Amino acid sequence: MRIDVLTLFPEMCEGVFNASILGKAREKGLVTLNTVNFRDYSTNKHSTVDDYPYGGGGGMVLKPDPIFAAVEDVIAKAETEGLVRSEQNIDHAERDSSTAKPPRIILMCPQGERFTQTKAEELAEESHLIFICGHYEGYDERIREHLVTDELSIGDYVLTGGELPAMVVIDSVARLLPGVLGNESSAVTDSFSTGLLEYPHYTRPAEFRGWKVPDVLISGHHANIEVWRREQALKRTLERRSDLLDSIELSDEEQKLLRRLKSE
Amino acid sequence: MRIDVLTLFPEMCEGVFNASILGKAREKGLVTLNTVNFRDYSTNKHSTVDDYPYGGGGGMVLKPDPIFAAVEDVIAKAETEGLVRSEQNIDHAERDSSTAKPPRIILMCPQGERFTQTKAEELAEESHLIFICGHYEGYDERIREHLVTDELSIGDYVLTGGELPAMVVIDSVARLLPGVLGNESSAVTDSFSTGLLEYPHYTRPAEFRGWKVPDVLISGHHANIEVWRREQALKRTLERRSDLLDSIELSDEEQKLLRRLKSE
Repeated sequence: MRIDVLTLFPEMCEGVFNASILGKAREKGLVTLNTVNFRDYSTNKHSTVDDYPYGGGGGMVLKPDPIFAAVEDVIAKAETEGLVRSEQNIDHAERDSSTAKPPRIILMCPQGERFTQTKAEELAEESHLIFICGHYEGYDERIREHLVTDELSIGDYVLTGGELPAMVVIDSVARLLPGVLGNESSAVTDSFSTGLLEYPHYTRPAEFRGWKVPDVLISGHHANIEVWRREQALKRTLERRSDLLDSIELSDEEQKLLRRLKSE
Repeated sequence: MRIDVLTLFPEMCEGVFNASILGKAREKGLVTLNTVNFRDYSTNKHSTVDDYPYGGGGGMVLKPDPIFAAVEDVIAKAETEGLVRSEQNIDHAERDSSTAKPPRIILMCPQGERFTQTKAEELAEESHLIFICGHYEGYDERIREHLVTDELSIGDYVLTGGELPAMVVIDSVARLLPGVLGNESSAVTDSFSTGLLEYPHYTRPAEFRGWKVPDVLISGHHANIEVWRREQALKRTLERRSDLLDSIELSDEEQKLLRRLKSE
């Protein structure tokens, strides 16, 4: 997968793209992560990328021309590099997938569709994602109407720019790509992927400052541990996120457990 | 405000903390941003911070001892530095506020309370925030039960670690601190702070690739522009996030407008 991030602050992204799991995925060539400063595509002599809003009012608005030019250049480069790769016969699978689909052009903005795990899974099927990150400014509406394919928001809070939200989406998508998560991490039972919140975890020491690990976990009785964990996951989900219970199918036993928990 | 981020990957945060608005706030001394590698607080010879889960199963679990030790050390340092500052008489206001309240100790995790703009406003009143960021692993339950004051989640998606979520929370909180946003940015009408999504913005050129700016915005007729913008904001909110309309008070005129939009 190829991912390009259009931003006025490329230095915000590099630390994240080079560290930990994303860094390893990049090193192994499982994902190509580029940052593009769209100020480089400004055609006026002061390299401005914003201007006053028509109709007055405070704040500045990002101009359409540098962003259209940057996106078009990124797409052209991706196509050329795809061709070069295919001529060199380096990676047929990647060439095939990278030429198969047009890129998704994603605008990070508070007005966007709410980003969810389902959306992460959908984007993980793509071969080229382009993120447009504004910074405490509005976007000219023509960018929304005639350039982007998706508008995404990661939640109902105000941030200073689109870079952190773009990195959040990229992290959640990249970890779903084949080979990115090693065995040590993929084995973790994720919240949301099972539909329930995770049960409590404990590790050594068995007693820490007088607080003990629950007896059942040390008992070695696997069936009891299994029951305890399912009960705890249901209990935590009921207490903290009962909305999640509406959208998952529970076994008869789990439904019985849930009724008991509710009556307690 | 002082903010400490406990992480195994401090290098993920520095690029974000040094750039743009956060970078300027840090430079001006409006916010102190530290990263702390809690691996430095491991007491075993291999500096491990995780261990196998009691009761079996895949994945690793973050041990309680290094995280308790790191948090306690950070609190002690903040107190000492607060005292040093007060002796030097550098900043009375900051000393007073920094010694007034115990820190908020925030665990970033998918099971946490959903982070919202209201929570950002609440945290912006604090003087010391400590974030604990795990990385594709579980936390020993005793950390939740006996150390943290808040568990936060930024949304229903799975990420490889807590660093990006912590930076999202920090960005949204820091921009609310006095002096952090300059005039150029604070004047922007934020989504969520008005309760409605933003109306469309346009800037020059008046015609770009054949797509024109709406006539009303170029008319110079301020009352008409005002009406158009309110209508567009209502329309966009109705189309994209009708749930937001339940929680705001609309004027009689806006309610009439909304009824007309709904019937169209």
